Amino acid sequence: MKRAIQNPLISPKDVSPSAEGFQVLGAFNPGATSFNGEILLLIRVAESCEQKEGSISVPTYVFENGTGTPQVQTFDLNDPDVELKDTRGVKVKGMEYLSTMSHIRIARSSDGVNFTVDPKPFLAPTSENECFGIEDARVTKIEGRYYINYTIVSPDSWCTALAVTDDFVSVERLGIIFPPENKDVCLFPEKVNGKYIAFHRPNNGGFGKASIWYAESPDLICWGNHKCMLRPRDTSYESMKIGGGSAPIKTDKGWLTIYHSKGDNQRYSLFALLLDLEEPWRVIKQAVLPLLQPEEPYETEGFFGNVVFTNGMVVKGDEIMMYYGASDETCCLATGSIKEILNDL
Amino acid sequence: MKRAIQNPLISPKDVSPSAEGFQVLGAFNPGATSFNGEILLLIRVAESCEQKEGSISVPTYVFENGTGTPQVQTFDLNDPDVELKDTRGVKVKGMEYLSTMSHIRIARSSDGVNFTVDPKPFLAPTSENECFGIEDARVTKIEGRYYINYTIVSPDSWCTALAVTDDFVSVERLGIIFPPENKDVCLFPEKVNGKYIAFHRPNNGGFGKASIWYAESPDLICWGNHKCMLRPRDTSYESMKIGGGSAPIKTDKGWLTIYHSKGDNQRYSLFALLLDLEEPWRVIKQAVLPLLQPEEPYETEGFFGNVVFTNGMVVKGDEIMMYYGASDETCCLATGSIKEILNDL
Repeated sequence: MKRAIQNPLISPKDVSPSAEGFQVLGAFNPGATSFNGEILLLIRVAESCEQKEGSISVPTYVFENGTGTPQVQTFDLNDPDVELKDTRGVKVKGMEYLSTMSHIRIARSSDGVNFTVDPKPFLAPTSENECFGIEDARVTKIEGRYYINYTIVSPDSWCTALAVTDDFVSVERLGIIFPPENKDVCLFPEKVNGKYIAFHRPNNGGFGKASIWYAESPDLICWGNHKCMLRPRDTSYESMKIGGGSAPIKTDKGWLTIYHSKGDNQRYSLFALLLDLEEPWRVIKQAVLPLLQPEEPYETEGFFGNVVFTNGMVVKGDEIMMYYGASDETCCLATGSIKEILNDL
Repeated sequence: MKRAIQNPLISPKDVSPSAEGFQVLGAFNPGATSFNGEILLLIRVAESCEQKEGSISVPTYVFENGTGTPQVQTFDLNDPDVELKDTRGVKVKGMEYLSTMSHIRIARSSDGVNFTVDPKPFLAPTSENECFGIEDARVTKIEGRYYINYTIVSPDSWCTALAVTDDFVSVERLGIIFPPENKDVCLFPEKVNGKYIAFHRPNNGGFGKASIWYAESPDLICWGNHKCMLRPRDTSYESMKIGGGSAPIKTDKGWLTIYHSKGDNQRYSLFALLLDLEEPWRVIKQAVLPLLQPEEPYETEGFFGNVVFTNGMVVKGDEIMMYYGASDETCCLATGSIKEILNDL
């Protein structure tokens, strides 16, 4: 695939903090869709707090009447109750606070390259089960509505929730669709054999390696008939785990999708995968070499270097516009031809 | 609750091995139901292999045409490819084998105390996703049919599958209902507000402690609207995790259920819990002290001592017959009055 020369398209400096005292560390892992002639990215914005000597400040939300208000909490480092938990947070009297918090922000573009980032969050924590943040949104247009699945994080762990919007202004939450520990959920754009289809990615805390699973649903809310459909291969690219990308693309050869792998040295790469049209848990072809792997400086350096991660694609005719997060810090674009990707498989 | 003086009711010596060369180590954690005037227990039978010097033998299944055949696999300990994995198994050329394997066996009784164990397995592995065994069955009678949920184990991890039977002779598998890592699933005996209800217990491999979750379903196959409903308390009984027992009992005060906790020193105890009739994710009352904790020698000693674990109850009028696994080795019974348990809450 061909990287946009304008990469990175969106960087933390392009995003205004969501609250006084917050600072933006990352604007990455964008969900993507076309809507009303524009391309919209649903960016994951990760924020921390400005720090002062002798204290630690963390981003939190206060919940009341179904809304969440961002609030800086500051703790005195000399307080014996304040316990630093490596770089990721702080523990105070049994309560844990993370040093970064994510929400979802929309960026809008008429050409798919030059984006304007909304000043306010689109999806931010509104209840306790989202109190550690909202991450990695994916958008799928199904039967005329835009379904957004995203990772929610709380002291209970992380899992995947669903929301729906018609206008990308208001959004209705539909609850948790895959319980902990689960992320990297991709909804198919249409029913297959009368059922909605999703990939998901359970974590393997005990044994086995995190793999891509298949599930079916009558209503997008309740999911069953789970099958493990693709496991990490024994290669340096996939030695740790794999997970789904964004909504698969229907082609006459099968469902085309791009998944990510985490390999040696925690390096993330992207691979093409072709699935059977009627039995989408069946793999027809799987790329041996990555479509994209970290090579450019904005992919090898940054907040968490050596990461390319896609959860948003837009298709225009034969062209795939693959938006991706680089180094857990920025939004980038690579383009390719569906025909060529299928031929190379 | 009052322990049966005949405890343990069923021990490994009462169960015939399921294959030549297998030996029974445990007959425990029984699901329970009344059926045709009898009480049936669905026992978890754990088997290992008889060992010979200089080699290691492990219980496996060979799969063909949708059936599984138990088979002893023996590896030469002098073979450099054979790597012992502590006491739990062996790894040979990248393939892992566990040293024990579980299946589900039925035991039948007219008085609920004296049981005859079927000579053959009721639910044993029939496909690769069950190749490390089937564990901890729970039976719930719903709309006249007997639904059985159970833990399946494979190299992909552990999760919960569903099956249904009308006669406890033949059984139809309905697939995976809660993907990894998930067990301790309890199905409610009837719909609440037009939906089937379950508890489940996702694992927390990352952070948080394993807790009891609530879910809803239109069809018992697909599950959604997940909520974390009960977390371990900060006590010596619940310091590690908690998980659901068997199908809750409907009383005029609410849904009564008995859950297990894993606390300090990996000790398991059992607690009563009362839930709202209309909103079963709402806790009305939770016992402070356990209903049952390991005290008798058959509960404190054995294959894995200091464990009492229930996944099967039968109700007769005001009496609860709570069957439970002791020390991961035997099946036991304790009885109690629903009224008294509710009064003590």
